[in-house]
Amino acid sequence: MTSAPVLHESKSSPNSRRVRMFIAEKGISIPVQPVDLGAKEQFSDAYRAINPRSQVPALALADGPVIAEVLAIWRYLEETYPDTPLLGTTPQSKALVTMWERRAELDGFAPVMEGVRNAAAGLKDRALSGPHDYKQIPELVERSKQRVANFFNDFNERLATVRYVAGDAFSAADITTLATVDFAANALKMPIPESHDALRRWYDEVSARPSAKA
Amino acid sequence: MTSAPVLHESKSSPNSRRVRMFIAEKGISIPVQPVDLGAKEQFSDAYRAINPRSQVPALALADGPVIAEVLAIWRYLEETYPDTPLLGTTPQSKALVTMWERRAELDGFAPVMEGVRNAAAGLKDRALSGPHDYKQIPELVERSKQRVANFFNDFNERLATVRYVAGDAFSAADITTLATVDFAANALKMPIPESHDALRRWYDEVSARPSAKA
Repeated sequence: MTSAPVLHESKSSPNSRRVRMFIAEKGISIPVQPVDLGAKEQFSDAYRAINPRSQVPALALADGPVIAEVLAIWRYLEETYPDTPLLGTTPQSKALVTMWERRAELDGFAPVMEGVRNAAAGLKDRALSGPHDYKQIPELVERSKQRVANFFNDFNERLATVRYVAGDAFSAADITTLATVDFAANALKMPIPESHDALRRWYDEVSARPSAKA
Repeated sequence: MTSAPVLHESKSSPNSRRVRMFIAEKGISIPVQPVDLGAKEQFSDAYRAINPRSQVPALALADGPVIAEVLAIWRYLEETYPDTPLLGTTPQSKALVTMWERRAELDGFAPVMEGVRNAAAGLKDRALSGPHDYKQIPELVERSKQRVANFFNDFNERLATVRYVAGDAFSAADITTLATVDFAANALKMPIPESHDALRRWYDEVSARPSAKA
């Protein structure tokens, strides 16, 4: 018998939300240990002993290592709890979920994060999360907004041809896209443009799922 | 019977190398269609019909869609040719390979690419690959070099405690790390520092594998 893993995460962290939604869609229950980012708890010695990179989320296995990085936590959960697959079911669909999830992250989620971190007054030397300090580059704020606008256009076009981001089935690609859309609206004040009918249709459907509240 | 997929790729593309090495480690053979990046063939109508994002590599399935993005091509190949696993074998090792491969990519490979693309005279409006144009940001060149130096430090520390990047077994995390080290040496003139014994020990071992020449 192994005891359960523990998820270290924060309600205010969009990356943590990607894992909470994944867990909610699976219908499983994982004990949670909140990390108070407002109080900079991620830089405490206690948290660095769990994740030396001072990032959330992180999944501490009961009798094994700590798994950090959203994609790695997802993979662990998908392999351990295979019911309600969210990373695809065939070689082809697993590849397509990987491809579309990655595009949502690199073209959408990462630019929102870049725009936020390079603008926030409290993050002058913390333009990138992780163990190293980097100064903000103000030019990146404007470029990030251009990238988010292009992401909205590209995903509106995609979702005019398919029900869900990776095709016929709800998947982790939808989770990252939903987290991106809400993060852009809240943190960059960039909601989905009114004219983007397909993206709005998809958003209404996906954000009505119970997991969206996780 | 399905016919074989075709890999569209370029000998000069470090991302293509990540797929070639994966294929070589598997000991499989995939037909290759070269894309001449020097002649800008990736922007031709013919290639855009294969990958509208004008990126290599891309794996065109014989009776299915085109799979783009290195991680997606890897996942397809791992599922289709499970012998010689390169993405882990247990839930825990699959998660750890995902985590370390991602760190190699986001902390190493991506900064080298960012440093190269923001400096190259021929890429003034092409600072990011993909379907959209973005202007170069000169400040990113210096920051990228700082990030690569930190990557060398972090991975030297990691490889002082393990044989391979993700642990005891050679994996896709080693492929991305090797592609990063060679890309940094060639394109940014940043070889592994002399003092980094553990990273050099690992490099000597991994670059002697036949797949390193792929």
